[in-house]
Amino acid sequence: MSAESDAASRLDRAFLALADPVRRAIVARLSRGSATVNELAEPFAISKQAVSKHIQVLEQAGLIGRTRDAQRRPSYLIPEALEELTAWIDTYRLTTESSFRRLDAVLAGMATDVTTPTPQREEEK
Amino acid sequence: MSAESDAASRLDRAFLALADPVRRAIVARLSRGSATVNELAEPFAISKQAVSKHIQVLEQAGLIGRTRDAQRRPSYLIPEALEELTAWIDTYRLTTESSFRRLDAVLAGMATDVTTPTPQREEEK
Repeated sequence: MSAESDAASRLDRAFLALADPVRRAIVARLSRGSATVNELAEPFAISKQAVSKHIQVLEQAGLIGRTRDAQRRPSYLIPEALEELTAWIDTYRLTTESSFRRLDAVLAGMATDVTTPTPQREEEK
Repeated sequence: MSAESDAASRLDRAFLALADPVRRAIVARLSRGSATVNELAEPFAISKQAVSKHIQVLEQAGLIGRTRDAQRRPSYLIPEALEELTAWIDTYRLTTESSFRRLDAVLAGMATDVTTPTPQREEEK
């Protein structure tokens, strides 16, 4: 697998992982500190097994990690992985916004052309 | 549907829309200016019909719009929708990073405790 398609499939997995309200709630909870499966499952009306599956999806997407050396094995959020997603989105958001600004400038220029009499119009008088 | 669950399903659709390399390539292309289905389909080795479906997914996610008043009906990117996604991610990324900084400060404090002789240790001499 090339580095490019590897990055693409990482983005696929990460965006897909965030496309679920339970997984986003887990991310929100982990942003306040690491937590075990039991702690993460507490606020949800779904089985611990279902929460474990959501945690796995987030892990495979590289958004969260799990401490290996403890009995509790709490999960923690990986902020660099979140930053990679905002960096991707912002690249295109900022390009769009700068295109819009250029378009605004062009339209402003056209408006000036309309209100300022041109030499040809002067001749028509 | 409540405002909260409405926002949740909008985030679901938006993140899901970005979890595909062709749809991300369409977003990248539209960030440089609006484009028709034909123009968007050009670089891909997939049918125009498949590209149309991807455009529909992006439209239903609110990430792109389509001009209604022209025969060409070009699609355009909606930067505010992208901003909503980065705002969501950044909320939790920044909370995590500030938790890490607090933890660093605590660990630095502990390191100072270890290296600085405590009154008890002074007594042990």
